[in-house]
Order: sequence, then C-alpha cells, then structure tokens
Amino acid sequence: MSVPFKVAVAGLGTVGSGTVKLLQANADLIERRAGRPVVITALADRHRRNYDFSIDGYQWFDDGVAMAEQTDADVIVELIGGSEGVAKRVCEGALGRGRHVVTANKALIAHHGSALAATAESTGAILAYEAAVAGGIPIIKSLKEGLVANAHNRVYGILNGTCNYILSAMRTTGREFDDVLAEAQALGYAEADPSFDVDGVDTAHKLAILATVAFGCTLEFGSVHMEGIRHVSSADISFAEELGFRIKLLGIAALTDGGVERRVHPCMVPADAPIAHVEGVFNAVVTHGDFVDTVVQEGRGAGERPTASAVVGDIVDIARGQRSATFGVPAGELESLPAAPMSAHRGAYYVRLMVLDEPGVFADVATIFRDNRISMESVLQRARAPGEPVPVVMTTHETEEAAMLRSLDAITALGTCVEPPRMIRIEPF
Amino acid sequence: MSVPFKVAVAGLGTVGSGTVKLLQANADLIERRAGRPVVITALADRHRRNYDFSIDGYQWFDDGVAMAEQTDADVIVELIGGSEGVAKRVCEGALGRGRHVVTANKALIAHHGSALAATAESTGAILAYEAAVAGGIPIIKSLKEGLVANAHNRVYGILNGTCNYILSAMRTTGREFDDVLAEAQALGYAEADPSFDVDGVDTAHKLAILATVAFGCTLEFGSVHMEGIRHVSSADISFAEELGFRIKLLGIAALTDGGVERRVHPCMVPADAPIAHVEGVFNAVVTHGDFVDTVVQEGRGAGERPTASAVVGDIVDIARGQRSATFGVPAGELESLPAAPMSAHRGAYYVRLMVLDEPGVFADVATIFRDNRISMESVLQRARAPGEPVPVVMTTHETEEAAMLRSLDAITALGTCVEPPRMIRIEPF
Repeated sequence: MSVPFKVAVAGLGTVGSGTVKLLQANADLIERRAGRPVVITALADRHRRNYDFSIDGYQWFDDGVAMAEQTDADVIVELIGGSEGVAKRVCEGALGRGRHVVTANKALIAHHGSALAATAESTGAILAYEAAVAGGIPIIKSLKEGLVANAHNRVYGILNGTCNYILSAMRTTGREFDDVLAEAQALGYAEADPSFDVDGVDTAHKLAILATVAFGCTLEFGSVHMEGIRHVSSADISFAEELGFRIKLLGIAALTDGGVERRVHPCMVPADAPIAHVEGVFNAVVTHGDFVDTVVQEGRGAGERPTASAVVGDIVDIARGQRSATFGVPAGELESLPAAPMSAHRGAYYVRLMVLDEPGVFADVATIFRDNRISMESVLQRARAPGEPVPVVMTTHETEEAAMLRSLDAITALGTCVEPPRMIRIEPF
Repeated sequence: MSVPFKVAVAGLGTVGSGTVKLLQANADLIERRAGRPVVITALADRHRRNYDFSIDGYQWFDDGVAMAEQTDADVIVELIGGSEGVAKRVCEGALGRGRHVVTANKALIAHHGSALAATAESTGAILAYEAAVAGGIPIIKSLKEGLVANAHNRVYGILNGTCNYILSAMRTTGREFDDVLAEAQALGYAEADPSFDVDGVDTAHKLAILATVAFGCTLEFGSVHMEGIRHVSSADISFAEELGFRIKLLGIAALTDGGVERRVHPCMVPADAPIAHVEGVFNAVVTHGDFVDTVVQEGRGAGERPTASAVVGDIVDIARGQRSATFGVPAGELESLPAAPMSAHRGAYYVRLMVLDEPGVFADVATIFRDNRISMESVLQRARAPGEPVPVVMTTHETEEAAMLRSLDAITALGTCVEPPRMIRIEPF
C-alpha cells in the first residue's frame, strides 16, 4: 500500500468547491495516475454553510490560517483569493512550515510571488499556481516544462473571460459596453464590481506572471501598462471589422531592445489570426519560442470545473514528487531586466475622431501626423450629416507611441473634435 | 557544482541535428532551468558526414546499438526512426541497461510501446516520447500531467502536417491532389514515397499513442481504422466550402458505449470550428476532459527545430528528476477496453455521386437511403451538361456506418454512377 497524499483546502467558494468535487469524483482515476491515493483531510471556510458536496470525515477549520499552522496535510490549497490578508497569511504560514502550497490566486502571486517563492525554496516546499493563469489551460507547465528548451521572446493572450465575453457580445449584437456589461453581470459572467476585470487588472496579474515564467525576469506587476475595455465602443468594433480586424483585450509581454514590454490593452488583431477566433469566455495563450516557434493553447479560463482541473493538476504533480523551480528558475536567479517604457513602444495604430464636418479639419489632422512623422495607412470617413459629428477613422504604419500621444494631444487642442480621440493599438500577429 | 546530465544521441538526420544544435545553442538557458548542465557526450550515425554543427569533443559511434550498450550517458536519445531494426534495438538495449530513453519515433512507440514501457519499468528507466506526437506541441505532457485530473472521453487532431499542407493548398488553389502532392514533394514537405503520410499511417501511429495516454487503454495500433486523403478531390473541397465545412485529415479517438473508437480519415468540420483554421504544416490537438472541458493546442507538428524542442523538453524533465508513468499509468495497468468496430460508428455523412443526368437516378438513390433508414439533410446538384456526368451531393443526418456502406454498395450496383461514390464523414465539433 502506498502512502496517501493528504490535501487541505482553504476557501470553499467556486474554485474550492470544484476542487473538492473533482478530488471526490475522480479519486480512483487520480490514484491510478498519481501512484498513490490523493485524499482530502481538512477543509477551511470562513462561514460554514450547506455545500453541494459531502464534508464528512474531513477536519474542519473556520480559519484557514489556523489550518495551515496545524494540519498534517502534505499540501495546503489556498483558494480564498485576494493579494493580502488571509490568503497571504495561509500561504506564508504553510510555506514557512515546509508545507507545499497550491493556489489559484493570481493577485497574490503577481504581488508577492517572489517573496513566497523564496520562502518555499528556503524550507524545501513547492509553490504551484497553474490555476492562477488562464484557468484550465496548462500554460505554466507548458512554459516551465514542455517548452523548457526554448528561449521565449513573446507571450500574449486573452486572459480574462469576462472581457472577452463582453467584446464578443458587443461584436455579435452591435450593443454598447454598458449594456453588455449589465447583461454579463446578470448572467454571472461579471462581478457586481467589474473593475478588476474590465479595467485590465486581472489580465495584468496574469501577464506579470507569464512574463516571469517565459523570460525568467523578475516579477514586476508595477511595470505592467494597463488599459481596460470601458472605452471600446460598438463603432470601433464595426470599423475594426471593416478594416479586417477584431478587437480583443490582450496581455502582451515581449523582449525588445529597450527591455521587457508588459502591456494590457485592447488590440486590433487580424481577423484571420488564431486568437481572433477565440470567443466568449474562452482564454488563449500564444507563445513564441526560438526552436518551437508559435504554440497556441486555448481553453476555458475560469469557472469551477476548469480551474479545479488546474488546481488538481498541481496537486498530482506534487503527489508524484515532480518538482521544478517556482518560476522555471529559482526566485533568486530571476533576472532584473529593464522595463521598456510604454512611450517607446513601436506599432501601428487605429485612431477614431468624432468631428463636426468642417472643411479643413482633416488637413489639420494630417499636418499634425506629418509633423510627428506618422505615416497613415488608411482613412475611412463614411456617414455625413450636416451639423452632426461624424467619425473619421485612420490607421497608421508603425510609429512610436510617444509620437502618437503627442499627436493625439495636438488633435485634442485643435478643438474640432467633439469627444476625446480614441486610439487602439494594432497588433500584426 | 551540480553533476552534469549526460546525453547520447543516436541518429543525426533532421531531428537529431536539431537536437544537437538546440542543446548547443541554449546550453546556458537549459542549465539554469534544469539546475544542472545538460551536456552531449556521445553521438552515433550510420554514415559520418559533414554536419552543420560541431561534433568535437563527443564520443563517436557508427552504430547506435553499440553506443546504447557502451555509453555512460544518462539518457540515450533515439532519433533513427522506423518501428523495427536499429531504432528498436537501441531502445531495448538502453532500457534493458536501465538507461533512460527519449525518442521521437511514433512508429516504434505505436507498435512496441507497451513492451518497451514494461522493460523501462522493470529496470527503473524512463521512456519519454513527447516528440512522437504533434511535434513541438507538448500534448503528451498536457495529457499525462497538466490535465491529469480529468477523465477524457475524446481526443482528436490534425496530426500530419504533410496532409494538412496538401488539403490547405488544394482548397486555396483549387488544384487536384496529385498536382499538389508533386509540389509538396518538390518543396520538401512530402517524402518521395508519401504513402506513410497521405495514406494516414503516420496519423494512425500518433492517434494510437494519444488514445492510450488519454484513456489509459492498451496501445492498439491494429485497431485504428485508417483512410488517407488520396481520394479527396477538389470538387469535394469546394462542395464542403459551399456547405459550410472544411476537409481535414483527422485522427479521432473517442470512448463510446461500444468501446474505443480509433479512426483516421478525412473529415468535414464546420468552418467556424477552431480546428478548421489550422492551416498548412501546423498541427492541432483537441482534448475533452470531464472537468476542464475543451482544450485546443496548436503548433508546428514537424521539422528540425520544433521536434528538437519536444525532444529536449523530455531530456530536461529527466535531468530534473521528473518522472510519471510511461503512459500516465504503468504499462501493466493499461485497461484492455474493447475496440468499437467502425461499422457501428454513428455520424453524419457527405456523399458525392457522379451520374449521367438521367431521369430516375435520384429517385433510385433516395429509395436506397430510405430503405437503409438514412435521412437526408441536404442535396446539391448544380451543373448540368447533357450527356456528361454531373455531381450529385448529399449530406445525411446521423446514421450508422454499416447502413451507409450498404447504401453505397447498392448505389454502385445501380450502374448509373460513372465513378465509385465518394463518402466523407461529417464531424459536429
């Protein structure tokens, strides 16, 4: 008889419930694959309630921190969430005692991953966080292990299902952001306070982690340039369509001559790019390695069951005795690479102005672009209604972000635009 | 100083060369990630020639079998190819001595994987074969590890880049199979003897392995139903387009009530399915797990550099001391599940007949389908040229393969078709 591997779960919300249910439902399968039984021994939740799974036979804690300090489980699974407070104390406590930790907590890893990894390394514990990035897609394992032979210079993806759902629904229905957001909230795809999702914070957490695992650079959440999707209008989505693009909120990390780019913002991607076809709540991650070239991985990025799949994948790795350094290399060996300033970013841009159809406005705009050495690729101006604002849409060839921002300031200063100019970066995938 | 991990490579063709070059080019990166140097110590090739990489300082063998018997390397990398002969003896010899083996050899694993795994388990060696399936895509690791928590009931994919290149080129150019194949041969995308690729054998090797890793069933290459792409015509491709489908050569494994389906054949897939957009030499694998739901992984399925990425991924796993059972569970624990006969397969079908445009032909065909309880979904008949054969295209609702084959025999017996009826299965992904 092989020794059972003991699991303690802290936090029984959506992902915690899914994890317990998965370990119960697939116990035989997991035992065969892990080579030993993987058994829950303890649970912790702040307010014990009626669960849709049995908690009989498990030790119960009202306090995850107490569980982390007292349990004899081999691994503590932290599914409480949040970058501070109880979740952090659970992980610190467990790792400090040399207990392995599995977490789905992207905020915690993005903010405190380096310190937690250092603690884990000092006590010989494992810190695993596959579920923190892209839900059920095993992207952390792919980067750390399957694609380990490659130097990666670019990783990007659709990392937030709520935003992708909203943008997909805006495109297919022609409705505006506020309207679709309200529907997503009613359907449970968006939180009552949606800002973590729609302002790009959640994507930025995941991107910061991906950049570190892909490039071996230090974990720098503060270096992520972050824009959300509140300003994307149905007009932009339909112009994108007309220009052969789709709008996606992407997290993009790239090694450039100027340092590490880490940026989260709406992007126009070619309609025939694989990532353009990732719709609704699905996530996708695209990696570029020097030998393997492009690899695309797509799957469900959130939800009880897909996230539980990732959590239990980490648990089984540990039960099998698998071990690789927290971020592919030990925390102390992460390289401190300079962060590339967003103002130095080079790329193509989409710009939409709403102007009163006065003669000379376009000449002024063209002059501003010329003075900033920005070369236009295309101009669209369709509807004309005397006395009413009309959209003027332009796309540019590759230019520097700083020049684009200067141009937009100058255009605003003209006073002929009835609302602030809208700019969306074009990615040439 | 940590102990170097010693690698011996047998076979210096495309993949062998790529593996040596990768280990040389990314040596520093790999050392940091593996936590120890990973160094080549010996090479074997039948005919020593001028290589586009340095072989200085490595022990040289003209005979891979001798190298496997004599080297003190930690891992023997078998990149000779072929299911029998030298490749098999190299792997048997190495595993028998307790040396780890990494191979890209799908034919060998498909035919002898169970016996080799048993040998490995008896001596404590590891047998790794990520590169044998879907080139650079880390699908074996995903199924064995990242998605380990899931019961899988379906796995399918585009597993042969040559066939996908040919079908993509036929679609975009409207040219016929023979013509595109000749071009692919000239470009080096197809072998002089293309039968392993275009007749589906290569896909079947990979599918047999995938089914075993996904379902934990015994490795049964002989149970794979196998049809290639020689009979796909440009007419079928353009009718598919008209009906909202694309034609792909897929390997499909599914757990059904009747047992394990393992089948390789051209399929019509909906034009908006993710797999429909996988073009050219790219491969893709789609898995369905009970918790994670659908995961799609796409990347380069062959070639020197992507395949080397997978080979070295396996090497680094072993250098790190990572270990999971050869097929996710030990070879002796693979379940002997019944193979579902192809005649019991249920699905929708596309049928194309070439008929002289005589009154009554269609009535005869409709009667045959009715007698076999096959319900038609759509009928297309466009071009009409008096006295010349015209295509009649039908799609059916779900029916049993046996009924379809009986119907096609009966249609052939009518004597009104000027060439054998063509049937392509429709997959409702």
